[in-house]
Amino acid sequence: MIRVLGINGSPRKYGNTYKLLSIALLAAKELGAEVSAIDLYDYEIKPCLGCLSDKPEACGYPCIIEDDMKGLYDEVLRSDALVIATPIYWYGPSGQVKNFIDRLTALENMIHHSGYSWAEGKVVGVIAVGNDGGGVHAVSSLLAALVAMGFLVPPWGFTYYASKENVEKDLETLRDAANIGRILVLAAEATRGVKRWYNPAVKLEGLVEKTLTSSAERRKEELSVRTELVSKALRVASESAREAK
Amino acid sequence: MIRVLGINGSPRKYGNTYKLLSIALLAAKELGAEVSAIDLYDYEIKPCLGCLSDKPEACGYPCIIEDDMKGLYDEVLRSDALVIATPIYWYGPSGQVKNFIDRLTALENMIHHSGYSWAEGKVVGVIAVGNDGGGVHAVSSLLAALVAMGFLVPPWGFTYYASKENVEKDLETLRDAANIGRILVLAAEATRGVKRWYNPAVKLEGLVEKTLTSSAERRKEELSVRTELVSKALRVASESAREAK
Amino acid sequence: MIRVLGINGSPRKYGNTYKLLSIALLAAKELGAEVSAIDLYDYEIKPCLGCLSDKPEACGYPCIIEDDMKGLYDEVLRSDALVIATPIYWYGPSGQVKNFIDRLTALENMIHHSGYSWAEGKVVGVIAVGNDGGGVHAVSSLLAALVAMGFLVPPWGFTYYASKENVEKDLETLRDAANIGRILVLAAEATRGVKRWYNPAVKLEGLVEKTLTSSAERRKEELSVRTELVSKALRVASESAREAK
Amino acid sequence: MIRVLGINGSPRKYGNTYKLLSIALLAAKELGAEVSAIDLYDYEIKPCLGCLSDKPEACGYPCIIEDDMKGLYDEVLRSDALVIATPIYWYGPSGQVKNFIDRLTALENMIHHSGYSWAEGKVVGVIAVGNDGGGVHAVSSLLAALVAMGFLVPPWGFTYYASKENVEKDLETLRDAANIGRILVLAAEATRGVKRWYNPAVKLEGLVEKTLTSSAERRKEELSVRTELVSKALRVASESAREAK
Repeated sequence: MIRVLGINGSPRKYGNTYKLLSIALLAAKELGAEVSAIDLYDYEIKPCLGCLSDKPEACGYPCIIEDDMKGLYDEVLRSDALVIATPIYWYGPSGQVKNFIDRLTALENMIHHSGYSWAEGKVVGVIAVGNDGGGVHAVSSLLAALVAMGFLVPPWGFTYYASKENVEKDLETLRDAANIGRILVLAAEATRGVKRWYNPAVKLEGLVEKTLTSSAERRKEELSVRTELVSKALRVASESAREAK
Repeated sequence: MIRVLGINGSPRKYGNTYKLLSIALLAAKELGAEVSAIDLYDYEIKPCLGCLSDKPEACGYPCIIEDDMKGLYDEVLRSDALVIATPIYWYGPSGQVKNFIDRLTALENMIHHSGYSWAEGKVVGVIAVGNDGGGVHAVSSLLAALVAMGFLVPPWGFTYYASKENVEKDLETLRDAANIGRILVLAAEATRGVKRWYNPAVKLEGLVEKTLTSSAERRKEELSVRTELVSKALRVASESAREAK
Repeated sequence: MIRVLGINGSPRKYGNTYKLLSIALLAAKELGAEVSAIDLYDYEIKPCLGCLSDKPEACGYPCIIEDDMKGLYDEVLRSDALVIATPIYWYGPSGQVKNFIDRLTALENMIHHSGYSWAEGKVVGVIAVGNDGGGVHAVSSLLAALVAMGFLVPPWGFTYYASKENVEKDLETLRDAANIGRILVLAAEATRGVKRWYNPAVKLEGLVEKTLTSSAERRKEELSVRTELVSKALRVASESAREAK
Repeated sequence: MIRVLGINGSPRKYGNTYKLLSIALLAAKELGAEVSAIDLYDYEIKPCLGCLSDKPEACGYPCIIEDDMKGLYDEVLRSDALVIATPIYWYGPSGQVKNFIDRLTALENMIHHSGYSWAEGKVVGVIAVGNDGGGVHAVSSLLAALVAMGFLVPPWGFTYYASKENVEKDLETLRDAANIGRILVLAAEATRGVKRWYNPAVKLEGLVEKTLTSSAERRKEELSVRTELVSKALRVASESAREAK
C-alpha cells in the first residue's frame, strides 16, 4: 500500500492551504493510499547549523539539533509520497517550511554514509497558497530542491492559489489538488519497483571519449564561422568605445 | 524501446552544453534507449503569438506560425523522454530555448481538443551550462513549466555547470549528466504503463464536503487564539503609527 | 551620515558569508558611512503567524510574537541601507533568513496604519554564499520581496559565491562585495531627498481613459489579423485531435 | 528632462500588458518626463550567438547580428529609464522579451572596452501580465538580470497581473502601474548626479586584511562548539547507516 504524508506549512491550520492539502489527501485515499497529515506549526523546527560546510559527511539522520525534527524525519521515511502545502510568504515558502526543507538535508546527505539519499525515489507534490501572487515562485524553489534530494515530481505535481477568496469556490484549483493526490499514488505505484535511481559508480570512460571526439569534429566544422564572428565583434565594440570617448 | 530526444539549445554546438548532453544521451543508449539529438540553433523558431489569450482553445498542434516548429513537435511527440540542454543567458534559458518552450504550448493545449495534454507523461531532464552562475535559476524556471505541461521530472533530473573550464575535467558533473540519461530511461520504463495521469473528471463531491467539515472544526478550535492575536496586532500597530507622527 | 546595517544569516559566523559581508561594510565605511552588523543566528526568530490573512491591517510594528525581532526591527528602522548576507541552503536563503524576511512584513504593513511602508526608500544589497550553486536563485527571491516592501536595489546590488574555497582568493567576488558597500552609500545619499516614493492617492482618471482609447484603436487595427489567426488555430487543432483518435 | 522608454513585449498589442505599460508611461509624463514606447513584436530579434563564451570581450555595441536590435540599442541608450512590460509565458518573460534581454549583453559588455557598462545607472521597472500566475517568477528573473547589467530598481519597481479579466477593473494594479511610472522618474532624477556606480579599481587591501583578522578571531571563539557539532553529527550519521543495513 502507498503511504502519503501531507505537510501543512500554514499557521492558520484551517485555511485554504489546509483545504487544498485535505482534498489531495482524500483523493489519494480514494485510490487506496494510506494517508496522514501533520501541521508543521505544531512542531519546533530550529534552523539548520550548516555542519556539512565544515565537513561534507557531517550531516545525517537524525540531525543532532534537539527539537522536533526527529519525529518528522521518521514520518517522511515511512512515506512513499509527500504533499507539501505551504503558504506563500514573500513569494516563497514560509520560513517554517524552509527550515523543514533545510533540515531534510539530513536524509539526503546519508548518501555519504549509505551510498544513497534516504529521500531517493519518494514522490512529491507541492501546493502553494497565498493572498496575491508568487505561487509559482514558491513552488519552483521547492521543486528544484526536492528533485536534487532524490524526489520524483510527477506530471502536474503542483498547484497554487493566490486569492483571499475561499478556495472551495474555485473548481479548477480543487480539481488540480485532487489530481495531485491521485497522481502521487499512480507515480508511487509505477515506480516502486525501481530500487536505486542514482548510480554513483556509473561508468564514464567510453562516454567521455566519444563525446570529446564528436565535440572536436563539430568544433572543426564551425571554427571558421565562429572565428569570424568573434573577430568582427571585437573590432566593432572597440570602435564604438573609441567613438564614445 | 524508450526513445530519448536531446535538445541542444546552445549556439556553440560543440561546447560544454553539447558535451553534457552527449554524455546523458550515451548513458541512455547504454541502457538500451534509442537516442537522437537536435541543435536548436539550426531551426527557425519564431516567438509565440499568444492566440490562447484570445480564445483558450485557439492553440494546438501544429502551431500555425510558419517556421521549423512543425518538425520539432513531431520529434517531441515520438519521444518518451527529453533532455533539454540550455546555455545560461542572464540566469535563464536562452531566448531560443524559451521560444521553443513557449511554442510547446501547442502540445499541452491539446487538452482542450483531445481531453489530454500531448506532452502528458513524457519524462524530462534539464541541463544548464554557463560561465558564472544562474544555473539553478534557469533550471527551476524550466522544471515548473514542464511539470505544468504534463512532463514527469525524475529524481536528480537536472544538473548545471557554471564555469569557463572544459567540463570534461569535472567528474561530479559528468556523473550527474550520465545519471540523467540513465534515470530518464528508468523512469520512462517504469511509468510507461500509466496511460493517463490527469483526470479532468475527477470526482470532487465527497472530498470537498469532508474538507469543509474538518476545516470548520479546526477553525473552531483555534478561533479564540486567532481572534486574540489579530486584535492585539491591530492595537499595537495603530499605537505605533500614532506615536510615529 | 548614512547608516548601513549588515545582516549575517550564516550559522558559521566566520565563513565566506561573513567575509563578503565584512568587505562590503568596510567599503561603505571608507565612503563615510556608519556601519554595524548582526549575526542572525544569535537571535531567536520565530515563524510568522500570518495575522494579515485574518485581517489585512492586523500586522504592524512591532510584531506581537515574543522573541528577538523587536530589537531587529529597531536596527532596521534606524538604518538607511541594509546588506543581507545569506548562506545558500537548497537554492534559497536559509530558513532563519526567511523567517527574518517574513517578519519584516510588520514594517511594510504599516502602510495600512501610517499611509506608507516603514521600509520605504531604504537601500538594500544581497550577498549569497554556498558550496555549489543556487546563488542567483536565492538572491532573486530576496530582491523581489524587498522591492515589494519598498526597498531600492542599486546597480550591481548583489553578488554570490558558490564554492568550497576561501573567498579571499577570488578577486572578482571581493571587488563585487566592496562595490556593494560603496554603491549602497552612493544610492542612499543620492535618494535621501526623496521623502515618499509610492503615492497611494495617485490620480488615475485621465490616464485610464487615454489608455482605453489608444487600446481600442490598436485593437481595431489588428482585429482582422487576430481573428484570422485564432480561427485558423482552432480549426487546425480540432482537425489534429480528430486524426489522433 | 528624464526620458522614459516603454517596451511592450506582448504580441497582442492592445491587451492588459499594453494597458499597464500605457498607464505607467502616462504617469511618468505627468511628472514631466518625455516618454515613448515600442512594440517588441514589430522588430526582428534573432537569438544571441554567445560570442563572449569564445572571448570575454567579443561582445559589444552594436551586436554584429543583422536584424533590428541596432535601433533598439539606440533607443535604450538615449533613455534614462525603461519600463519592460512582458506577457507571462510559462512563468517567464516571452521568448521575444528574453531574446531582447539576452542581446542587451552588448551594452553591458562594453565594460571590457569603455571601463563601464553602457546600461549603468539607468532605472528600470518591470510589468508582467498573464492569464493565471507566474508573474513574480517572470519578474524576479528579469530584475536579477537587469541589476547585474547595471540598472537600478527603485522601490515598488514592478507589478504583475494574472487574470483573464480586463485590468482596468483592478484599481490596485492600475495604481501600482501608475506608481511605477512616477517612481522611475523620481529615481532617475535623484540619481542623475551619480556618474559612475561600479568602481573596478576599488581598493581591497586594507579591507581584506581586516576581514581575515576578524574572521580568524570569530573562528577561534566558535571552534570548540563547531568541532563538537561536527564530530557528533558524523558519529550519529554513520551509526544510522550501520543500523539501516
